Amino acid sequence: MPPAHPFDDDKLKEECGVFGVIGLTDAANFVALGLHALQHRGQEAGGIVSHDADEGFNSARRFGYVRDNFTKQSLMETLPGPLAIGHVRYSTAGSKVAQIRDVQPFFGEFSMGGAAIAHNGNLTNAEALRRELIERGSIFQSSSDSECIIHLMARSLQRDIPERMQDALRRVEGAFSIVAMTQSKLIGVRDPLGVRPLVMGRIGDGWVLSSETCALDIIGAEFEREIAPGEMVVIDDDGVESHFPFRRQKSRFCVFEHVYFSRPDSIIGGRSVYETRRQIGVELAREAPVEADIICAVPDSGTPAAIGYAHESGIPFGMGIIRNQYMGRTFIEPTEQIRNMGVRLKLNVNRALVRGKRVVLVDDSVVRGTTSRKIKEMILDAGAREVHFRIASPPTAWPCFYGVDTPQREKLLAATMSEEEMRQHLNVDSLKFVSLDGLYRAVGEASGRDANSPQYCDACFSGEYPVAPSDMIEKGFELKAAE
Amino acid sequence: MPPAHPFDDDKLKEECGVFGVIGLTDAANFVALGLHALQHRGQEAGGIVSHDADEGFNSARRFGYVRDNFTKQSLMETLPGPLAIGHVRYSTAGSKVAQIRDVQPFFGEFSMGGAAIAHNGNLTNAEALRRELIERGSIFQSSSDSECIIHLMARSLQRDIPERMQDALRRVEGAFSIVAMTQSKLIGVRDPLGVRPLVMGRIGDGWVLSSETCALDIIGAEFEREIAPGEMVVIDDDGVESHFPFRRQKSRFCVFEHVYFSRPDSIIGGRSVYETRRQIGVELAREAPVEADIICAVPDSGTPAAIGYAHESGIPFGMGIIRNQYMGRTFIEPTEQIRNMGVRLKLNVNRALVRGKRVVLVDDSVVRGTTSRKIKEMILDAGAREVHFRIASPPTAWPCFYGVDTPQREKLLAATMSEEEMRQHLNVDSLKFVSLDGLYRAVGEASGRDANSPQYCDACFSGEYPVAPSDMIEKGFELKAAE
Amino acid sequence: MPPAHPFDDDKLKEECGVFGVIGLTDAANFVALGLHALQHRGQEAGGIVSHDADEGFNSARRFGYVRDNFTKQSLMETLPGPLAIGHVRYSTAGSKVAQIRDVQPFFGEFSMGGAAIAHNGNLTNAEALRRELIERGSIFQSSSDSECIIHLMARSLQRDIPERMQDALRRVEGAFSIVAMTQSKLIGVRDPLGVRPLVMGRIGDGWVLSSETCALDIIGAEFEREIAPGEMVVIDDDGVESHFPFRRQKSRFCVFEHVYFSRPDSIIGGRSVYETRRQIGVELAREAPVEADIICAVPDSGTPAAIGYAHESGIPFGMGIIRNQYMGRTFIEPTEQIRNMGVRLKLNVNRALVRGKRVVLVDDSVVRGTTSRKIKEMILDAGAREVHFRIASPPTAWPCFYGVDTPQREKLLAATMSEEEMRQHLNVDSLKFVSLDGLYRAVGEASGRDANSPQYCDACFSGEYPVAPSDMIEKGFELKAAE
Amino acid sequence: MPPAHPFDDDKLKEECGVFGVIGLTDAANFVALGLHALQHRGQEAGGIVSHDADEGFNSARRFGYVRDNFTKQSLMETLPGPLAIGHVRYSTAGSKVAQIRDVQPFFGEFSMGGAAIAHNGNLTNAEALRRELIERGSIFQSSSDSECIIHLMARSLQRDIPERMQDALRRVEGAFSIVAMTQSKLIGVRDPLGVRPLVMGRIGDGWVLSSETCALDIIGAEFEREIAPGEMVVIDDDGVESHFPFRRQKSRFCVFEHVYFSRPDSIIGGRSVYETRRQIGVELAREAPVEADIICAVPDSGTPAAIGYAHESGIPFGMGIIRNQYMGRTFIEPTEQIRNMGVRLKLNVNRALVRGKRVVLVDDSVVRGTTSRKIKEMILDAGAREVHFRIASPPTAWPCFYGVDTPQREKLLAATMSEEEMRQHLNVDSLKFVSLDGLYRAVGEASGRDANSPQYCDACFSGEYPVAPSDMIEKGFELKAAE
Repeated sequence: MPPAHPFDDDKLKEECGVFGVIGLTDAANFVALGLHALQHRGQEAGGIVSHDADEGFNSARRFGYVRDNFTKQSLMETLPGPLAIGHVRYSTAGSKVAQIRDVQPFFGEFSMGGAAIAHNGNLTNAEALRRELIERGSIFQSSSDSECIIHLMARSLQRDIPERMQDALRRVEGAFSIVAMTQSKLIGVRDPLGVRPLVMGRIGDGWVLSSETCALDIIGAEFEREIAPGEMVVIDDDGVESHFPFRRQKSRFCVFEHVYFSRPDSIIGGRSVYETRRQIGVELAREAPVEADIICAVPDSGTPAAIGYAHESGIPFGMGIIRNQYMGRTFIEPTEQIRNMGVRLKLNVNRALVRGKRVVLVDDSVVRGTTSRKIKEMILDAGAREVHFRIASPPTAWPCFYGVDTPQREKLLAATMSEEEMRQHLNVDSLKFVSLDGLYRAVGEASGRDANSPQYCDACFSGEYPVAPSDMIEKGFELKAAE
Repeated sequence: MPPAHPFDDDKLKEECGVFGVIGLTDAANFVALGLHALQHRGQEAGGIVSHDADEGFNSARRFGYVRDNFTKQSLMETLPGPLAIGHVRYSTAGSKVAQIRDVQPFFGEFSMGGAAIAHNGNLTNAEALRRELIERGSIFQSSSDSECIIHLMARSLQRDIPERMQDALRRVEGAFSIVAMTQSKLIGVRDPLGVRPLVMGRIGDGWVLSSETCALDIIGAEFEREIAPGEMVVIDDDGVESHFPFRRQKSRFCVFEHVYFSRPDSIIGGRSVYETRRQIGVELAREAPVEADIICAVPDSGTPAAIGYAHESGIPFGMGIIRNQYMGRTFIEPTEQIRNMGVRLKLNVNRALVRGKRVVLVDDSVVRGTTSRKIKEMILDAGAREVHFRIASPPTAWPCFYGVDTPQREKLLAATMSEEEMRQHLNVDSLKFVSLDGLYRAVGEASGRDANSPQYCDACFSGEYPVAPSDMIEKGFELKAAE
Repeated sequence: MPPAHPFDDDKLKEECGVFGVIGLTDAANFVALGLHALQHRGQEAGGIVSHDADEGFNSARRFGYVRDNFTKQSLMETLPGPLAIGHVRYSTAGSKVAQIRDVQPFFGEFSMGGAAIAHNGNLTNAEALRRELIERGSIFQSSSDSECIIHLMARSLQRDIPERMQDALRRVEGAFSIVAMTQSKLIGVRDPLGVRPLVMGRIGDGWVLSSETCALDIIGAEFEREIAPGEMVVIDDDGVESHFPFRRQKSRFCVFEHVYFSRPDSIIGGRSVYETRRQIGVELAREAPVEADIICAVPDSGTPAAIGYAHESGIPFGMGIIRNQYMGRTFIEPTEQIRNMGVRLKLNVNRALVRGKRVVLVDDSVVRGTTSRKIKEMILDAGAREVHFRIASPPTAWPCFYGVDTPQREKLLAATMSEEEMRQHLNVDSLKFVSLDGLYRAVGEASGRDANSPQYCDACFSGEYPVAPSDMIEKGFELKAAE
Repeated sequence: MPPAHPFDDDKLKEECGVFGVIGLTDAANFVALGLHALQHRGQEAGGIVSHDADEGFNSARRFGYVRDNFTKQSLMETLPGPLAIGHVRYSTAGSKVAQIRDVQPFFGEFSMGGAAIAHNGNLTNAEALRRELIERGSIFQSSSDSECIIHLMARSLQRDIPERMQDALRRVEGAFSIVAMTQSKLIGVRDPLGVRPLVMGRIGDGWVLSSETCALDIIGAEFEREIAPGEMVVIDDDGVESHFPFRRQKSRFCVFEHVYFSRPDSIIGGRSVYETRRQIGVELAREAPVEADIICAVPDSGTPAAIGYAHESGIPFGMGIIRNQYMGRTFIEPTEQIRNMGVRLKLNVNRALVRGKRVVLVDDSVVRGTTSRKIKEMILDAGAREVHFRIASPPTAWPCFYGVDTPQREKLLAATMSEEEMRQHLNVDSLKFVSLDGLYRAVGEASGRDANSPQYCDACFSGEYPVAPSDMIEKGFELKAAE
């Protein structure tokens, strides 16, 4: 039984990270390191499946951090072989209470052998597919949308596993970056829009697939290239085969990966995530300047933008909020007091620095606003003269259905309030979000967002969903009215 | 049995943090929060003792982080009462293998009632005292130097516990900041030199003692004042009594608390630790300027000095090294690969930022130099053009005997090499340490260090020990020759 | 990961016990007690599924004893509702290494709702069924033969779950006593031969299904009747419906349930198991008398027969072997010494009693003979003058394929040796097994075994298998040649 | 934190077993086996201390069964060396809540080296000694009476450890059978009355000390002799030295060791415990015959006396009550239902056997009568016609102060009721206890108890305490009035 999350840091949560290796002795050890580097993409649980010629498939799935489970000799010895994939997750779409059977990779035994898959993203027609599959005799073991893929593969008439996977993926809608394996092949595939990231690397004679480049760095692998939107790569002893099994579409990569999800030391689409975030700060300083004494960040995610804002504005950057390094995300059976502490367990104001100052506080996003209120209070308690919030993303007004845990729409502060209402609600001296065009400039689109054909998926800001969320619509979700 | 420490981050380690509360319902809950805020002072183990009128004394001692143990309802319920003290520790002086019986607070039953003590610091004559006490019939339960204090108290002829403690402490030599309790009193005491910190705060009708002010902040207590060097405070329902039981001496506070041990959001001697560290960076930039493109820190301890260096030099500050937030200090039963990963598990270079740049890398200290070498290699691998190390403390050339875990003298890089030899050993383009005078200026001594009567304990830099380390001298340690 | 079994007590192992309750508040608590009483039928793992109108289906599956898992408040609270079933198991047919996913009850979600099943027995055509189901697109999650039933149910075209279960069970061969549940019904069913036991009881307004009557006693339920061979009962708020969905056959209950598997305080087919075993001892004394000083049992399973033998022979019964009450079946990570201790960890000879005596030692069965040898040596070491083995079952010469863990045929002592060869191998003064006719007399068949139409399944003694073990035959198992 | 004991089986509880080995490689492994064989003497916790020339002293103390802790490779590897002692315990005299620091062996560091002691028995002047020792400066770590011995040793002026132990033991009153060790010697000692047992054995070149002979058997050691009352043996490489440091007294061995505490396969004072118990049954049949159909035992402790009663009376013996083999003594966090189940979790009536019968039920003792009542009800529920209780010990009317956990006097049924009142209270057809003389005859005193100088300690029956329980008298306990 997984522990409670009394500590709400009020962020959108990336749901998953995926990683796979072929051609290295004890591949599972490398997968463990890769997952550790991807831990920011999912802290609730992790799993690894490996294959060895003698031992066949083995798997281990655990709640908790990678470093607490998949670094142990006794566990890793149960995962032998030169081929392994792994997954870290925040939580699946379907499940209220986390259960180990919902932890990926999922495994299926087919007549031509076994396969395991690890999925980052979310299928927007999973509920309809699930009903149909159950009607036809499939037994589901998890509450995860991703399990549909295994059952669709089981019912495919194709002769080999990569083709069955193509068959299956042509039936699903939504976002998927998948790392999968058979007993001899490592497979990577991205949905036609390429919503979630997936990259390929090399290390010695081995190949690596990973959600982000930072996980290549930790094992010393060289970045080779990104898997293209709509591409499937199949890697075995003979090298890499590339397929494009889907109808081609214009890509719509998730812009929030740049804003918050990805690690700053990763490189996406040839751009440094750190540099993009710093540039968002520069844009913010241009769009929303203010007279102030010091620029501070809500650590750690607001720091690059704060550095950029400070550089552009000429106002000094300082560490106004200090993070406790010994925080995890969850507590087992917490006392009432711990439950009520919230962000104070994690952050403390550097009182001597902010006392009497006009402070600009840069954060990456505002979701429900709960944490922003508490931080503002802590800073005022410490004696700041003025507090100016600067947010390194546009107002988050719409839920994500492509693999991100977002509150229901009515819980999003920006869904129900104007910027000025939010300012009053947070009770700060000023509040400014970067504009959608400013954000697009920061990610390299010099002329801003192309309103007719946006270069990214920005549904959480714009309400324009590149794939219709059909399960949700069936449940009554209302799309943005056409303007 | 506690886990192994395969991961060496090559820092001096503060050995302990102490915290105590009187006059608050469920005082142990507040102590748990205080210890969480002091976790940077000791991550190996923690303990809390509480007293309740009905239940008497209760205690719990655990290996691991405060947040993993002392936040649980079921454990905290066993620690009732309005009076409690706690301790976090890195490791005790005497023990090779950690054992739960070495975890403080220590408890003793005397004829006039029980007492518990939590000790930050180290006694330099503990081994001689221990031999003497065993000879006279005392049974030691731990390998800790601190247990001597309990046995000396047991043999005192004084009538009450504070007086017995004064008796005992007059027999010990070395550094001690102690938080202790009887069934009705909270006691705080610092050695005559005041080597380790200890502060007092108020919250409602309650009183708090803490190693640092950052732990007052987390529970919302107001900072009242520091306990003075050589002072004992005895707090009960009637308020605070102050005693000065020792011969008065000029104080010699540990300067390394400013450099590294204390949290940047703490205030010591009226000075912000963050601001002092930033100022060290300013001094460094003045003493050791260099032409460069970017100023980076070894996170997180080098960041304030890097900000100061960047500000003074006018060269931009950037996050050239990214820390993995999901690292703990130890691994249980690690694989060979984990054992060999070292600092790569924790840090990754922001490759896009440093490529082709002349990088100034600011770190707080160099101890054995092992981590510095690895970081330098990671930065060069990432394509930096030049690497210039700037160290925010003077060369660490002497071990500490006052409660800090330091390697033997011959393992300290600065004990055997000149600055230029160290530069060659680390193979960097330049290497500069802040001067001892520069450090003193940064902590507020405008004219630098008073060589005849230094204002701080700086033995780790200067080799001038304010208290003779008698146990160590007996074992053959050679003091610095008089010049 | 379950623990190792270094301790071999050389018995045939019943693989499972099943229990279900409907109509009682917190039904899972009653199931836990029932499973505790059935623990002798399977010690490796246990599981419970419950259903509550608000909470839906919940399940918990654990390795280890029922009493160590399913007595905890915190676990049982997760299993609310008036309807629950449970299962204890020794090991499944398919699995080398135990995995939690092989622990029953198994659960399936169908278009008309969920169902859980717990199976005692073994399907002899499971492997062929599994291949066929996988070919048609089923995804298996366990290595258990029992999972086939769920997949067959999923593919049935029937409209309600009991009918789907009938559909499915008409496809399987072998032995099954099943307790199952939907969200409103408790279902019990036995294969047409009625190889494994299943009884029904009442308690207040509730109904109970159980492998044995001893588990009715623990919860205070009244024994109602046995489920008949080939019968399915479906119990809900409206009472009990009885169905006979299979072609009727002459029943063939497992005779070894009387000899060893069932608990002596259970009643099977109207006969006390204890009394039957005592009567086997009487038959043995008649068939194989011997001059001796004392009759001893290998505790605890040999004791009733020893009492019977003593009574019939007039030689006193004594406790010649004493059992250590603090033994479990398995050890986690045992030392070499523990691994080598074997039966000495569990049994010790009462040296003072056997010294200089002619001892008759009554055991329930001889499987590989490994334990028998060790016990004989212990008794001779203790100074017994003669040792006469009397075995309360015929020679076990054939493996069981109906839900009992037996060694491969060539490991069975009686498969390769005559009685005299076994005597020499065990090196005892005499060795006698009860005859097959004697055994049948003891279970109440006054004229012994009807060779043309045996009243019981006695394949382990006779090699006459009432259901052809088709999977095993396909793998090369050779049936007994027709005589 | 140890688990709760919701299950009361209403027996007197032996508090401890002790075991020690010298001269065998990995002595701790042998100690673990010995403690496993002595587990009936204490199930709450166990500990082992070993000494190795290179590694010095090591210790491990754990709650729970020996077999769950001290069979693990990883733990036993931490206990190297040819010399080790161990202890199992039920609970110490002083402690309400069990704590690991109360688990023996206790260890003390003296100026001439370390020593560890394991104590079976109880000191009747421990509280007075403790007060005195604290007054003089000793720090107690446990609430155990046994710790006094270590502190008395620490204050002795003698030069070697055995002499210091003699010094210390001359100061204590009460019962003690002690196994102790220095870095080169194994020491065994019994109090002058020899209340608790202690035997010596040989195995190869090694020597063994044990509470009972059954623990010699498990490791294959030969019984050498009992340690005499008042004797200290000191064993090292040079062999066994014997000392008699106390004033000689007539021995008073605990007669309840014969009745219940010791294992039936142990030999005490040259007599088989099993045979003694069988003989008590014979005496009971002579003293209290009854017309009946069957003789049953409350398993397992009543079985030998039931066999004796059956043999003497000519009425057949049968297993009327069946024990569940999968019971432990304690539950962690039990449900309400488990808390209320009591003896039904452990025992079930063999309904078919007792229905319609006149049953004689033989139990070893009646303490509070709670379990006896429940068993009687279970037997009547099962349809027995008459129930006659026969108790294989005299009425237990006085508490024990020599190492046995007994309820306060007013809770003992026999302290407040006559035999007839007890019969009515239990509501049975007849109730008879063996007489004190009958018990003495069964243990070999042909002419019964010598009222002027009893051969055994039988204070629990007679109220005649061979050592005045001085701590208890000080607290108000009233001795039996002189007659």
